[in-house]
Amino acid sequence: MDLPTLRWTGGPGGPAIELLDQTRLPAEEAMLTCRDVPQLVDAIQRLVVRGAPILGVAGAFGVALAAARGDDVPAAAQALAGARPTAVNLGWGVRRALAAYTAALDAGGAGPAAQAALEQARAVAAEDAAASAAMAEHGLRLLPPRARVLTHCNTGALVSAGGGTAFAVILAAHRAGRLAKVWVDETRPLLQGARLTAYEARRAGLDYAVLPDSAAASLMASGAVDVVLTGADRIAADGSVANKVGTYGLAILARHHRIPFIVVAPVSTIDPGTADGAAIVVEHRTDEEVTTMAGHPIAPPGSPAYNPAFDVTPGGLVTALVTERGVAQPVTAGTLRLLGDAQRLPNCARPDISVEL
Amino acid sequence: MDLPTLRWTGGPGGPAIELLDQTRLPAEEAMLTCRDVPQLVDAIQRLVVRGAPILGVAGAFGVALAAARGDDVPAAAQALAGARPTAVNLGWGVRRALAAYTAALDAGGAGPAAQAALEQARAVAAEDAAASAAMAEHGLRLLPPRARVLTHCNTGALVSAGGGTAFAVILAAHRAGRLAKVWVDETRPLLQGARLTAYEARRAGLDYAVLPDSAAASLMASGAVDVVLTGADRIAADGSVANKVGTYGLAILARHHRIPFIVVAPVSTIDPGTADGAAIVVEHRTDEEVTTMAGHPIAPPGSPAYNPAFDVTPGGLVTALVTERGVAQPVTAGTLRLLGDAQRLPNCARPDISVEL
Repeated sequence: MDLPTLRWTGGPGGPAIELLDQTRLPAEEAMLTCRDVPQLVDAIQRLVVRGAPILGVAGAFGVALAAARGDDVPAAAQALAGARPTAVNLGWGVRRALAAYTAALDAGGAGPAAQAALEQARAVAAEDAAASAAMAEHGLRLLPPRARVLTHCNTGALVSAGGGTAFAVILAAHRAGRLAKVWVDETRPLLQGARLTAYEARRAGLDYAVLPDSAAASLMASGAVDVVLTGADRIAADGSVANKVGTYGLAILARHHRIPFIVVAPVSTIDPGTADGAAIVVEHRTDEEVTTMAGHPIAPPGSPAYNPAFDVTPGGLVTALVTERGVAQPVTAGTLRLLGDAQRLPNCARPDISVEL
Repeated sequence: MDLPTLRWTGGPGGPAIELLDQTRLPAEEAMLTCRDVPQLVDAIQRLVVRGAPILGVAGAFGVALAAARGDDVPAAAQALAGARPTAVNLGWGVRRALAAYTAALDAGGAGPAAQAALEQARAVAAEDAAASAAMAEHGLRLLPPRARVLTHCNTGALVSAGGGTAFAVILAAHRAGRLAKVWVDETRPLLQGARLTAYEARRAGLDYAVLPDSAAASLMASGAVDVVLTGADRIAADGSVANKVGTYGLAILARHHRIPFIVVAPVSTIDPGTADGAAIVVEHRTDEEVTTMAGHPIAPPGSPAYNPAFDVTPGGLVTALVTERGVAQPVTAGTLRLLGDAQRLPNCARPDISVEL
């Protein structure tokens, strides 16, 4: 695919972060240039760039941008980390770049510190790309031959410096000749499935179809779905998975129809500091995201809406969690702790925890 | 409410059926005049008028219109009955008016036959209004005090010559001071919830909020839903309920969260000729209903879609079926047969079959 989802540029106009504006897809492939952190925070909040892994990359490059400009870097880091509350990766990427910056600042001053922050951001991006490839490999082993996969939201090259999370598995299945169909939940209210996943599926030449989120149940009942694959925005210590609203309902429907429900996410998504699903802060967004569409009202003006951006799926409903380090199955505090330990030992090669379907 | 959903007019321009164009709501309250049956069939297919009970009324008035014009009435009846395949009420209303027409034609000729068809259509409408009132009364008894009700699609005065089905129960609860909140599923792809139910809720002064269909699961998990109320388009002999796509998923979610799932529909919706859920013909509509919104593409042009208009909920997932004749609980072939027998004995007062929640 090689989508230019996020690019660091150091051209004559000074350092900048270029983002593929995902709010304009699929109609238009337009790049947005962020020359300072307030512009980047605004872009994150408007979902110009969205999706858990790339938010970590964006956060790290944001710190590097503040450092290159000579801004107040800790203040910029705080603004970035607080731009959206649910995805854990954002704060994680910010903290990594900030730690590299701070360490270099103490040792060598502002110039080397800015360089260290940029190098750390590039490392976050490179690790993300490598993690995508590893998740694709682990996830592929869980799919049946001629798989018909249902997915939700967008989890491909648009959310990652690599191939993505769940969509990376789907793409790997396609390349291995093992994908029969990908069913794309449109993913209301912002239609990341219809707009973005369908766009990536079309570019990659997959056999796909878009469906209203509410049609997933009858599709499953018809026997046309072998497995459900989604990403995650934050995974609590007890295995509860926060992801795009609609994920929890899909997990219940998958359980009802005895269809495996698999979450694909890098270990950076696991948050040992969040004890359980109830402790996950879920972002609620504006009524207008639900009651208008491309500027047109689709409900009586002023109608109130219930518009959580995410929901929380208990680990007990998740058949398996695929990470770059291996597969947790079942998804419990114990299996997550093993993955978390691995996370604290960079470059340590761990055996898979367990793989069974 | 007194919405002019459907009106028969015999003015200087000749006989006609006036329809409140539901495709334009909530932006505009425009009437569409159908002067012949092809215009009415087109309006039914474009969903200018939609919803199970009012389709029965529209079908009956359509036969009356053909008769008043001196058209080929049996051919017109056939075209009307086939306009949409899933709602049983359409064919039922057509057959009632056609039977009255045919009997009068044999006895007295074309003039009295046209008059008989019109009288029969008026009777269908009057019975529908009376049925709404009776369903509201029966359904209200199943609601807790201060009820927070989740509903799907549109089931109010826009689908009925009276107050509707599920929405009539909600309105009765409001009038009785027993409604705390109505949660309105937006009901993709055609947004009958956001456009039409929110419109009716606002007109009636209800405390309501619109939600993406995919947010219903987390709303239930939050404890904010006491009961789910929906309508039905066809109920098979085994208790399987065909209704707007998304209903089946809601029923599974309600069961998972131990929330009563109640279907409200007139006995004319029960179809003893359809043995079970598998025998129900589900209408599949165009890809564009999913991939465009108000003329704007929301997916890459040419994207294929899965777009069934309805899904089928097994009777075992339905806590109770509220009809104008009483409440079937559980919803099985046996309880439906009792209601069906009542249907064949017009004006017979039957005791409720069973009410327990």
